[in-house]
Amino acid sequence: MTEQPNTTLPLDTLKAVTDMAYDARVASRVLAKADTDWKNMALEAIARQLEKKSDVIVRSNAEDLEREKKVGMSDAMLDRLKLDVHRVQQLADAMRELKTLPDPVGEVVRGSTLPNGLRMVQSRVPMGVVGAIYEARPDVTVDIAGLAIKSGNAVMLRGGSAAARTNETLVNLIRNALDKTSLPMDCVQSVDEFGRDGAQALMMARGAIDVLIPRGGRDLIQTVVRNAQVPVIETGEGNCHIFVDVLADSDAAAKILVNAKAQRPGTCNAVETLLLAKGANAATSVLDALVKAGVRLHVDDASRLLLPEDADAVAATEEDWATEYGSLDLAVKTVANLDDAIHHIRQYSTGHSEAILTDSVSNAETFIREVDSAAVYVNASTRFTDGGQFGLGAEVGISTQKLHARGPMGLEQLTTTKWVVRGDGHTRP
Amino acid sequence: MTEQPNTTLPLDTLKAVTDMAYDARVASRVLAKADTDWKNMALEAIARQLEKKSDVIVRSNAEDLEREKKVGMSDAMLDRLKLDVHRVQQLADAMRELKTLPDPVGEVVRGSTLPNGLRMVQSRVPMGVVGAIYEARPDVTVDIAGLAIKSGNAVMLRGGSAAARTNETLVNLIRNALDKTSLPMDCVQSVDEFGRDGAQALMMARGAIDVLIPRGGRDLIQTVVRNAQVPVIETGEGNCHIFVDVLADSDAAAKILVNAKAQRPGTCNAVETLLLAKGANAATSVLDALVKAGVRLHVDDASRLLLPEDADAVAATEEDWATEYGSLDLAVKTVANLDDAIHHIRQYSTGHSEAILTDSVSNAETFIREVDSAAVYVNASTRFTDGGQFGLGAEVGISTQKLHARGPMGLEQLTTTKWVVRGDGHTRP
Repeated sequence: MTEQPNTTLPLDTLKAVTDMAYDARVASRVLAKADTDWKNMALEAIARQLEKKSDVIVRSNAEDLEREKKVGMSDAMLDRLKLDVHRVQQLADAMRELKTLPDPVGEVVRGSTLPNGLRMVQSRVPMGVVGAIYEARPDVTVDIAGLAIKSGNAVMLRGGSAAARTNETLVNLIRNALDKTSLPMDCVQSVDEFGRDGAQALMMARGAIDVLIPRGGRDLIQTVVRNAQVPVIETGEGNCHIFVDVLADSDAAAKILVNAKAQRPGTCNAVETLLLAKGANAATSVLDALVKAGVRLHVDDASRLLLPEDADAVAATEEDWATEYGSLDLAVKTVANLDDAIHHIRQYSTGHSEAILTDSVSNAETFIREVDSAAVYVNASTRFTDGGQFGLGAEVGISTQKLHARGPMGLEQLTTTKWVVRGDGHTRP
Repeated sequence: MTEQPNTTLPLDTLKAVTDMAYDARVASRVLAKADTDWKNMALEAIARQLEKKSDVIVRSNAEDLEREKKVGMSDAMLDRLKLDVHRVQQLADAMRELKTLPDPVGEVVRGSTLPNGLRMVQSRVPMGVVGAIYEARPDVTVDIAGLAIKSGNAVMLRGGSAAARTNETLVNLIRNALDKTSLPMDCVQSVDEFGRDGAQALMMARGAIDVLIPRGGRDLIQTVVRNAQVPVIETGEGNCHIFVDVLADSDAAAKILVNAKAQRPGTCNAVETLLLAKGANAATSVLDALVKAGVRLHVDDASRLLLPEDADAVAATEEDWATEYGSLDLAVKTVANLDDAIHHIRQYSTGHSEAILTDSVSNAETFIREVDSAAVYVNASTRFTDGGQFGLGAEVGISTQKLHARGPMGLEQLTTTKWVVRGDGHTRP
């Protein structure tokens, strides 16, 4: 609440970044007019460059890895930072996948001829200039650049110092690919040269940047949300809950919990808290299955009693209910009933994804109605909250805010609309 | 750029407003479940109360008018502040008009059954708690409360000290009407008791308030946009342009300009700058008609030559191009061609509404494509940019931002969406 915009931001950095954003705006006007085939050619050119320059990218990445290893980056973070030949190929494949997605630009959202003869059409147009702030994930550089190009937007990237060398190589490669396709290179620019000030300048550049997308951990996202004067789309924080009702299919419940927690614990749609209805028939099989899958349980007193005496479990504290572990840890709480579960979710959820496992139609309907999250599941794993799984194609991120986009965001969410009104000398009476 | 959040905001005010927002949240859950008939009953109850208590409202308003007159409020502002019996009746009529509009809540936006059998539906749900900050316009109190109720949202109002007595009477009346309809009174609350701190607290209440809508002048809107940590929808700033091309129907052009400037000069969709193509055949008749309509022209040197020598015109300065007069003033500039006009618009427009008057299909298409505004017109008055005129029914405001909503916002723009996913023990492979 007391955080302040960085008033120490050097004015010349702000000016330099604003100038770059101006170049991006000019470039975006060309891109906005490019038809789908042309934009797909650029994506294909990026894919080919990635394949051709694979070794150069891996070498740049090795420099970043070596430096970060020396300063003590964790293995998990080093893994996110790493690009090997296989991962570079996956990035190239992702660009080709983007080619197959429908182009949102030009889609007519609504239209009509009014009684007075005015012909009105509201259609999708690119946002203009998109900003992205992320950290230590060089794959995001390619990902976001590709999404921006396909949706007709220029993009300003701030990728974090840990991946500086890799990102520099990738941005140059993308800009060359644009140039080869006769699209302006300035459609993709990096502000990494300004360090943290570059990120600050992006947050301050109201009017120059149309929307800012932070991708990363909680701290990064909260800093951007609190400080940005540019409109922000908040993404990715997921303290997700699964409520196991009194009557639920035991086998299915056990499978869903193991899937939601253990399949990829680091993702934002992984479950973080299991809420067990008092006397739930599936409780024991669910807990057994989780323990067998190697999940560390953080349990309240009532749930402790459901475990074998020698079971390895931690006593849950208030902090556990609010924690997005991102690991094979899971908080477990026994609640009196559905209302208690809903109350708990309202208090601690980040509004990402929640599920109820139940055989009761009325309880399912109540849960759906009362839980205010981007995605609400009945008898399914929270892991499905994903642009690809939802059939939206590539994913910009998963919005946990209510404005503009909620849940998985695809290309469409990088567009806005424009009303075009054609008359014949019409005046308002 | 250097404006700072108000760190002098007393913590107890922040706490009090956050507590009120919590009550609003609880109330909003009941309202969110209310069906359309129920919400319409509340709107009818408000309409009847307005009619019944018309004299009380007018008396409260007289107190506000008297006080503000004494401290020197301008006649134009006093007129906006004033509620007489006729205007109160218009407010009641507006509530009944709202009843006839389709309810956006529950509308299915998209849905499908995935190949794996997951049944997915994305449908509209209320935002939750909406905040509104406005000034000296007590009609907005009723307007926004009605829109919030119809869209299933609770609302927190900050109406400004000039209309304090009127707003107090109106908010009490609306709360009584909700109570009579068995809806929670806390769906509509005012933070006016906290003065300016109330507005500050609304801007800071991230998580408690889902979206904040400022309605008013440029200063108010910019203060909210720069300081709010709650997502904001920027509305209403309109520095609108009309470009008269070399070949355009003279009679139609003259009528459109007079309509766009003089019909209601105080509105945000009124034209503020006329761009004349060099040698435009319609130039003289357009300028003649404007002068006859009592418009004060602020002209550049080239346009001055198109006027009779004795014509009453002011020399335009740089400031004129950036000014939303809101009066019978109009800036006039002669530009070399279409490209020059587009360049000028890009530099000075607030992205609200712009028009081209032309007989050239290719110039019309270029203008449509290159001008990045919420509404772009061909051969029609900018005055049509309005929720009612566009067929959206009641209007929350006109968004000049690109996120969430662009152009006239109706009830739909006060909703967000929720994905409901039904499975049968589905896990992600």
